[in-house]
Amino acid sequence: MTNLRAGVDLGGTKIQAVIVDSDHRVIGQARRPTPVAGGPPAVADEIAATVREASEAAGVEPGALAAIGVGSPGYVDGREGTVAHARNLSDWEGVFPLGSTLAKALGPPVFLGNDVNVAVEAEFRLGAAQSYASIIGVWWGTGVGGAIILDGKLWLGRGAAGEIGHTVVRLNGARCSCGRRGCLEAYAGRGAMETHARRLVARGRETELFEIMEKRGRTRLSSGVWERALDREDELAVALIGRAIAALGAGIASAINLLEVEAVVIGGGLGTRLGQAWADRVARAMNPHLFVPERAPAVHAAGLGDLGGAIGAALIAEGEMARRVDPGV
Amino acid sequence: MTNLRAGVDLGGTKIQAVIVDSDHRVIGQARRPTPVAGGPPAVADEIAATVREASEAAGVEPGALAAIGVGSPGYVDGREGTVAHARNLSDWEGVFPLGSTLAKALGPPVFLGNDVNVAVEAEFRLGAAQSYASIIGVWWGTGVGGAIILDGKLWLGRGAAGEIGHTVVRLNGARCSCGRRGCLEAYAGRGAMETHARRLVARGRETELFEIMEKRGRTRLSSGVWERALDREDELAVALIGRAIAALGAGIASAINLLEVEAVVIGGGLGTRLGQAWADRVARAMNPHLFVPERAPAVHAAGLGDLGGAIGAALIAEGEMARRVDPGV
Repeated sequence: MTNLRAGVDLGGTKIQAVIVDSDHRVIGQARRPTPVAGGPPAVADEIAATVREASEAAGVEPGALAAIGVGSPGYVDGREGTVAHARNLSDWEGVFPLGSTLAKALGPPVFLGNDVNVAVEAEFRLGAAQSYASIIGVWWGTGVGGAIILDGKLWLGRGAAGEIGHTVVRLNGARCSCGRRGCLEAYAGRGAMETHARRLVARGRETELFEIMEKRGRTRLSSGVWERALDREDELAVALIGRAIAALGAGIASAINLLEVEAVVIGGGLGTRLGQAWADRVARAMNPHLFVPERAPAVHAAGLGDLGGAIGAALIAEGEMARRVDPGV
Repeated sequence: MTNLRAGVDLGGTKIQAVIVDSDHRVIGQARRPTPVAGGPPAVADEIAATVREASEAAGVEPGALAAIGVGSPGYVDGREGTVAHARNLSDWEGVFPLGSTLAKALGPPVFLGNDVNVAVEAEFRLGAAQSYASIIGVWWGTGVGGAIILDGKLWLGRGAAGEIGHTVVRLNGARCSCGRRGCLEAYAGRGAMETHARRLVARGRETELFEIMEKRGRTRLSSGVWERALDREDELAVALIGRAIAALGAGIASAINLLEVEAVVIGGGLGTRLGQAWADRVARAMNPHLFVPERAPAVHAAGLGDLGGAIGAALIAEGEMARRVDPGV
């Protein structure tokens, strides 16, 4: 056995695996598309294949890994090794024993954590938030996720704490994909922004967003598409991102007024892609809502980039992290 | 020296003092109006007089008290024994050494805490929230204050955590007394509700609110005035309280989505006066915004009534509580 560990970030579109050494250096990696059919068994097979590919890149047998950590969406029960209600994955409404399935396929022990929690913990231990004791991580992608670290420890509440994306920023406001109204995610989630853009285009509004999307062979407005459109100063993209930033500013400032942590880390697909210049805009949008603006928190873009989630997952495999245990709902 | 302690709740309109024994039983109390002129020295004199009066009622010399605790508005520095920026008190913008001033006047050691924090901690230790480990206290009065207890400990952030009243519930919404826009307090604070009611009356809207106020010899819409108007089903009162409840529901649900604590305690002048039936309405208004409605928190009206703040202040004097230390802004 080696002292190498694998970390897997299981996303709706891709599976990212890394192999890290005891200094958390990435010595091998692989990325594969997430299967869109076949349900949890197909996804588990593909995770195993991605770990094997990353292991090969690192020159290690998967069976020789000390442990494997997986950051997963949905309701993750770290003690039971199960994942349920992973709604952005194929047919994954029920409870699936992802931990034991992967352990059987690959050999080493497998640890599971919530995807956003592990990514935020990675930023806290190894990334942009290393110098703070208490932070809020805001994961800005298709949706808006979050995690809270207080005095060095992930705050889990009764299992599902951190849902900053479902802060009400506008009473009776826009309909959110969660079915509720006025949530931050209904304004700032990439999914909600795309829905909004498509609706405006159908009404005759002009934008380059969908041309850029098609040129890139995409069917959705990915973070890269938004970035390109912003670079070109596409009016609609600028307006919708501006609306998202205003909502993020209000929602995050409200969380700061409640918790007064020292720093905010903005990650996720869109947050990571847009980087510090846009994190600074979020900070400016927060300012008018802060109760103690003289003590505004630091706002950092995530520092570990696209691999942050997978590196964070490897941290669970070191047993260094609290695992999110969610009894389900 | 006895094992008796005094607790003082310093409010914008009244000073409430209690004398409690080692079982936290109130064995004497007194209440006086807060001086509206003369600045901090006048207020300190009146606090001392109120403690003397309560001591007399309890049959104890003030000098024989084991300790005195004071819950104060503004920025309270428990270590330094000072209070600053107490904007609802006479001329109290600067830093005043309230602790040493009272200790000199009365004899026993004096401990200071933030008024909302001590009242919420009293509910947590002795009142409506005794069976929980983690709660949010929402203090609904002229403004909307709050305090958070996580795993049995007051969470202070960098000194001013808990400001749930300045959660943005409506982007670009109503102007708040803090100068910002769309805060929960701008919809639910008794002060904001009165301003709104006066504006609507000036535009010709009918209501019994101000008649009830005048009959009671008041110049402001006190909690008792609102309660009476609600009892009479005054249309404007019902509408404005309904608007407040909707805002409380959204703001508190957002805090629950973030922290997932087990319970919410609603206190303060209006919360205490309206009681459990209205706390239940807040719970119903929260429900549509909860991310995990199946695990909705319990919502309790404060159980210690009007004396909760003073009893909580006596708890600080027992050294049982974390004191709010606020470095100021």
